[in-house]
Amino acid sequence: MYRSHTCGELNESHLGQTVQLAGWAHKVRDKGFVVWIDLRDRYGITQLVFDQDRSEAGLLEQARSTGREFVVQATGTVVERASKNPKLPTGSIEILVTSLKVLNPSLTPPFTVEDETDGGEELRMKYRYLDIRRNPVKSKLLFRARVALEVRNYLSGKGFVEIETPYLIKSTPEGARDFVVPSRLNEGQFYALPQSPQTFKQLLMVGGMDKYFQLVKCFRDEDLRADRQPEFTQIDCEMAFVEQEDILNTFEGLTSHLLKTINGVETGPFPRMTYDEAVSRYGSDKPDIRFGMEFGDLTSLAQHRDFGVFNQAGLVVGIAVPGAAEYTRKEVDALVDWVKRPQVGASGMVYVRCLGDGTYKSSVDKFYTSEDLAQWAEATQARPGDLICILSGETESTRTRLGMLRMEMGQRLGLRKADQFAPLWVIDFPLLEFDPESGRYHAMHHPFTAPKPGQLQMLESDPAAVRANAYDLVLNGNEIGGGSIRIHDKQTQAVMFRHLGFTEEQARNQFGFLMDAFQFGAPPHGGIAFGLDRLVAILGGQESIRDFIAFPKNNNGRDVMIDAPAEIDPAQLEELHLALRL
Amino acid sequence: MYRSHTCGELNESHLGQTVQLAGWAHKVRDKGFVVWIDLRDRYGITQLVFDQDRSEAGLLEQARSTGREFVVQATGTVVERASKNPKLPTGSIEILVTSLKVLNPSLTPPFTVEDETDGGEELRMKYRYLDIRRNPVKSKLLFRARVALEVRNYLSGKGFVEIETPYLIKSTPEGARDFVVPSRLNEGQFYALPQSPQTFKQLLMVGGMDKYFQLVKCFRDEDLRADRQPEFTQIDCEMAFVEQEDILNTFEGLTSHLLKTINGVETGPFPRMTYDEAVSRYGSDKPDIRFGMEFGDLTSLAQHRDFGVFNQAGLVVGIAVPGAAEYTRKEVDALVDWVKRPQVGASGMVYVRCLGDGTYKSSVDKFYTSEDLAQWAEATQARPGDLICILSGETESTRTRLGMLRMEMGQRLGLRKADQFAPLWVIDFPLLEFDPESGRYHAMHHPFTAPKPGQLQMLESDPAAVRANAYDLVLNGNEIGGGSIRIHDKQTQAVMFRHLGFTEEQARNQFGFLMDAFQFGAPPHGGIAFGLDRLVAILGGQESIRDFIAFPKNNNGRDVMIDAPAEIDPAQLEELHLALRL
Repeated sequence: MYRSHTCGELNESHLGQTVQLAGWAHKVRDKGFVVWIDLRDRYGITQLVFDQDRSEAGLLEQARSTGREFVVQATGTVVERASKNPKLPTGSIEILVTSLKVLNPSLTPPFTVEDETDGGEELRMKYRYLDIRRNPVKSKLLFRARVALEVRNYLSGKGFVEIETPYLIKSTPEGARDFVVPSRLNEGQFYALPQSPQTFKQLLMVGGMDKYFQLVKCFRDEDLRADRQPEFTQIDCEMAFVEQEDILNTFEGLTSHLLKTINGVETGPFPRMTYDEAVSRYGSDKPDIRFGMEFGDLTSLAQHRDFGVFNQAGLVVGIAVPGAAEYTRKEVDALVDWVKRPQVGASGMVYVRCLGDGTYKSSVDKFYTSEDLAQWAEATQARPGDLICILSGETESTRTRLGMLRMEMGQRLGLRKADQFAPLWVIDFPLLEFDPESGRYHAMHHPFTAPKPGQLQMLESDPAAVRANAYDLVLNGNEIGGGSIRIHDKQTQAVMFRHLGFTEEQARNQFGFLMDAFQFGAPPHGGIAFGLDRLVAILGGQESIRDFIAFPKNNNGRDVMIDAPAEIDPAQLEELHLALRL
Repeated sequence: MYRSHTCGELNESHLGQTVQLAGWAHKVRDKGFVVWIDLRDRYGITQLVFDQDRSEAGLLEQARSTGREFVVQATGTVVERASKNPKLPTGSIEILVTSLKVLNPSLTPPFTVEDETDGGEELRMKYRYLDIRRNPVKSKLLFRARVALEVRNYLSGKGFVEIETPYLIKSTPEGARDFVVPSRLNEGQFYALPQSPQTFKQLLMVGGMDKYFQLVKCFRDEDLRADRQPEFTQIDCEMAFVEQEDILNTFEGLTSHLLKTINGVETGPFPRMTYDEAVSRYGSDKPDIRFGMEFGDLTSLAQHRDFGVFNQAGLVVGIAVPGAAEYTRKEVDALVDWVKRPQVGASGMVYVRCLGDGTYKSSVDKFYTSEDLAQWAEATQARPGDLICILSGETESTRTRLGMLRMEMGQRLGLRKADQFAPLWVIDFPLLEFDPESGRYHAMHHPFTAPKPGQLQMLESDPAAVRANAYDLVLNGNEIGGGSIRIHDKQTQAVMFRHLGFTEEQARNQFGFLMDAFQFGAPPHGGIAFGLDRLVAILGGQESIRDFIAFPKNNNGRDVMIDAPAEIDPAQLEELHLALRL
């Protein structure tokens, strides 16, 4: 053992004790007659002191020559500090060192190991092991571990069994792109890494396991966007003999438990909102309900005047941005530019200033009367001082755009408070969504989601109208979990595959095992999966997931620290019966 | 909710209650005037009863037509059984059913869902979801989850942090073969799946994380042997600022804790044995010390007589097999044949019967006197009634062969008791082992293991003699864990790589990131990894790991249930810049 204590635990109760510490030289301050070293480890910082009067001359010299991030072992006595630091748990004491040993020196680190570092993103990723020494990263990894353990213990306590499903499975073209793994022993064949253990957890239900969960890595070979990782962790759950209500209650329990134990926040019953309602009230199926700015539908109020833009629109819809009536012309123009950015895609924005004296001033004053504008204000619940922002056009995309503006304004106005938690269930998702690119309907969740009872027939007549017992758990504007009641009979699954464009042979080839399983007594079942990376980030009050992952990949899917992926030996390729085609 | 109770919880305290159960029709017994259904779920079996007097006629008919493994929902009243089954927790009651609903019918399963099934291995694997319904498999999966949770809570309680390391890493030719994953975004490049998170856990130590663990899947593309899986789970652990003693104590603590909480077995301090001692006393570096039959070295006693075979041997060594003196000639010959099998590879076996009257009868009576044989008996601690089995030849291989015979005899004589647990530490492993095939030394654990202090220089002069602070935890003849103190400075690591045949460029290319990390203040560190599949099997008193894995692969690395690996779409290959070379 290199130490008797950690650098986080000594205080006045240890005065006079001889102790041994080991850690990193965080800071060395040399005042000539006295040298202090802040010794750091995972648990904290303890001050080492060396001085002319009390320390051997050689020791003082040794302390002086200790570089930043040197790994040292110090033996000494716990003494009271002259000037105490009440902010530090160890701030009342210091160690008068009698022996100092360098366990390993260090080159000057490429960035400072401080809470606020001078290292840019790329440098921090290349030297991630140094980045992890920094409090903000270290504490996020500790936080993640705590959340994961809490999840495991909570679910285990509720009778869920953690079961490991395989990582080397079979590629299925449905959904996102698979990562594949060539098989050496089975020439010309490939495994795939799971995008989720979906079919396996369903088979576990067929196998009678009843309540399953797993914290499990999943893989998607997608073109990466910011803050998306090719490998990510799911809390994957499934239950048998349940209805949607049971699943919502169970995982509302888990989420409340986490908010309470991790964040100290008590939540009442989670609100529930249908998909249709969420989209029409917030322009999003994952609304952030920490703040209002709900949509006001102005279509019937605003049409049939002389304003052609509104008259041609499928939807005219507005939000009242609190306190923004006093925006300058320039500020309002900037907002208009913001909604016209290609990422948002609106063609323009109409606005109404709700002035303090109860009057209105709008960009469409020549088409609408004060009484019109007052009705708009009522529909958007605008109060004096607010700015009503109005978009119009095709219904769905207009909602999406106004939803983006709403989130942007929530952000700008500081309404998205990191320490406030507003969970809700969004339910009754459509079973299918139309993909304009392929001209086909795709499963909105996945092909195993059951249509609502009695709606199977509608797949022929009105596919877009079919709803599913599918639900998302939304927290602060993020989907943190999603799931559904599954199909559990072969016939329905076959109909579903057919509607998704599978030939019978393709369905058989890829999911024959599952349809077979449904013939041998499959119980009704359903489940949910949480994105752990995202969940942990939100509970931690952060927007970005990256520092909650020990060794994340960059936006090209590269690990810049170990420099992966990389070329492999030609002999390896040959063993795998493969050739490069570049 | 489909049920008010599970099939495992109802007893006399529930008499008279109306309950609802759901599960599988395990058995249907039709006596004409009365029909019983054993309803089964994960938690147990509850008997449903339908009879002429008390049930509606239609209901009786319905019960009668319920097939094996149908999923049914039953509502009824808890009543007392006429003939109680004291072996079943629910054996005092039955449910007088008032309503029965088939939730899903079932085809006749391909094998019986019973503890002793009529299904062969291959059929069970193809229909693994049915196999999992069987008690022996189900209970092993539940057991595994319990052990895993216990491990997590124990280590977390000791300050260890579970940190997820990446699955998409870099291929390194050292060690076993990697599974690789072609990168679509990085043309011509590949990720590899980790054989273990070795380098990452070391980087976490450099990053100050101090005490790390992870239950993590690892991957090895090896030619599969029975009971070896291409993907397996490790309990991976690492600590900083520790010496070997700290690691042994910590993980002896974990193992004792598991034996106590899981098996109810109290163990004293684990014996420790050097590698050299283990090999010379048991012919194995993972001796099963639940039984004796220790090696007796007969070399000096048996040489320099007229028996050429022994005289030419590097080692003459025997074990006393208890009670085997009375084996018939045929039985002894079968033993000789056993050691001559190619898997063992001995050229013959000398034996001595230690008779009840204190005399000896051997296969080499013409070369040795009774006094000689008495000395042999003393050296092998043979008692009257034992059979001394003696092998001779080159030291190392002879030990291995006799070690195999010892294990075989332990097995045959029932000395390897499943409910007995004999852990020990084997320490001081050689750093390197010579590989006759490549004519080179390889790292016995891995290239990151540190030589014992002061022995680095011996790598030049006497590589085989260099020992490491490397240790295995052995339980009942199985290595359940292995680890070492690691190298933590760049220079030593570079020397090590050189001795393992790496060019400087290769070392830089593959492990440059680690050697860089060692220059920025790497603390002394070490760790251990347990094979979870094996550990769980042994704690469960089993030899085979397969049923402790929910969805294992067969000996060709295939999942016969989902039929993976499989061919992939040519378009997928093209996107990956690959072509098949068949």
